[in-house]
Amino acid sequence: MNYDQICYEIKNKGSYLCVGLDSDLNKIPKYLLKYDDPIFEFNKIIIDNTKDLVVAYKPNLAFYEVNGSQGMRTLKKTLDYIPKNIFKIADAKRGDIGNTSLMYARTFFETFNFDAITLSPYMGRDSIDPFLEFKDKWAIILALTSNKSAKDIQSIKNSNGEQLYESIIKNSTEWSSKKNMMYVVGANREDDLLNIRKIIPDNFLLIPGVGAQGGDLKKISNLGMNKNCGIIVNVSRSIIYCDDSINFGQEVRLSAMKVKNQMQEILFSSRII
Amino acid sequence: MNYDQICYEIKNKGSYLCVGLDSDLNKIPKYLLKYDDPIFEFNKIIIDNTKDLVVAYKPNLAFYEVNGSQGMRTLKKTLDYIPKNIFKIADAKRGDIGNTSLMYARTFFETFNFDAITLSPYMGRDSIDPFLEFKDKWAIILALTSNKSAKDIQSIKNSNGEQLYESIIKNSTEWSSKKNMMYVVGANREDDLLNIRKIIPDNFLLIPGVGAQGGDLKKISNLGMNKNCGIIVNVSRSIIYCDDSINFGQEVRLSAMKVKNQMQEILFSSRII
Repeated sequence: MNYDQICYEIKNKGSYLCVGLDSDLNKIPKYLLKYDDPIFEFNKIIIDNTKDLVVAYKPNLAFYEVNGSQGMRTLKKTLDYIPKNIFKIADAKRGDIGNTSLMYARTFFETFNFDAITLSPYMGRDSIDPFLEFKDKWAIILALTSNKSAKDIQSIKNSNGEQLYESIIKNSTEWSSKKNMMYVVGANREDDLLNIRKIIPDNFLLIPGVGAQGGDLKKISNLGMNKNCGIIVNVSRSIIYCDDSINFGQEVRLSAMKVKNQMQEILFSSRII
Repeated sequence: MNYDQICYEIKNKGSYLCVGLDSDLNKIPKYLLKYDDPIFEFNKIIIDNTKDLVVAYKPNLAFYEVNGSQGMRTLKKTLDYIPKNIFKIADAKRGDIGNTSLMYARTFFETFNFDAITLSPYMGRDSIDPFLEFKDKWAIILALTSNKSAKDIQSIKNSNGEQLYESIIKNSTEWSSKKNMMYVVGANREDDLLNIRKIIPDNFLLIPGVGAQGGDLKKISNLGMNKNCGIIVNVSRSIIYCDDSINFGQEVRLSAMKVKNQMQEILFSSRII
């Protein structure tokens, strides 16, 4: 999926919602446990009920790997089930030396057919480069994450007073362009969003942390958006675990609809649609 | 496996060799392709021929994930085949927010029964903590890696002139102790090894980059060792891909033996054995 296609989907759907498929056997509605592959059934119901409301899905790999080879089968089935016009993000936070990164790129872009993968920048450019060589596939680099300890590392200042995450974003602008690089910025990093937008006005930002983690959609949208929207906001737990009855599909739809409607208003009042 | 057991194995075997099981379907001897699970057959022959020479095996996850659910089955079979007294390292370079890190910890420590996992420190303490709560399991934190671009990020200096990797190692000493934390330091980072040993004299270092990547065993051993040895040196490609005939098992054994004998001499001349 390329940059223009993502922009088209956002405008067409009036949504920049990504739903995180952090699907945990211990948290899904109990009635699903009777199925051969309960996690797939869960994902399927979520996809059926939200595919017209979202522009992206983001399975977090940990939740699939914990189930070993069965988890990989579930992941593959889930990816195959997601409609083609929806952006598929592997939340995998990988990053390794070149030949290993290439292997990960093949894993996520070819074996599983993801459109994008989240990557840790700690090993530098040559750990990211292999992901940038696949046509219409994306590297999404961790910049400033939403967890409490993130700032202990990511905000270490260099001798020019520049924070680590700023140095990384600046470095990375030489690796490629807005055409295949996005950045993860936590929804609770409001104070830094304007700053980040000064360095990378055009790239998409993937913003997790709205919902269970407490980020404010309106505020972060106002701070993070550019003229093409430029943000994809992820919500996981407050949508996928909003109900545990046999009717959870409808409840998931209502929860997602609420966020989507808010997004549509924001897109409208920002004159993007 | 705990600290004392690792020290015992090193002294008992006269070896601090870790063999990296970066097993790639495109690189293994062709005759293995007739088996149902060629990668497992390859790993099995390597293990059979080196288990008395090594103290650790380190499968790199990328090489298994690329084969989807089959890869996970291969990995599980491989882990089950490794003898109990050998330290099993998941080279996975994970790191995520707390609840996801816990999921990864369960994946690697419980589903696969690894003893240790490599972790990226970019998200800070709360991304590492969940791994430190499993008894006799280890977090191996990326400090200074062997790839070319590593220094672009890992050597960024803070306002006190301290390099990023130093700050991370210093921070991390508050997270736990030598009892369950090791650090990755590339074999080509000789100049930094003494410096690292000043900050963490007692922790084990996992040192990749000897062999195909060019690191010098004797030099890095002299710089990195402490009185309990304190280093585990990984060799992957120059051992596992040293031959592609039907007799590759013997060749692998000879290659590993050569490294092991060098290690035994170093341990002896350092009066560790």
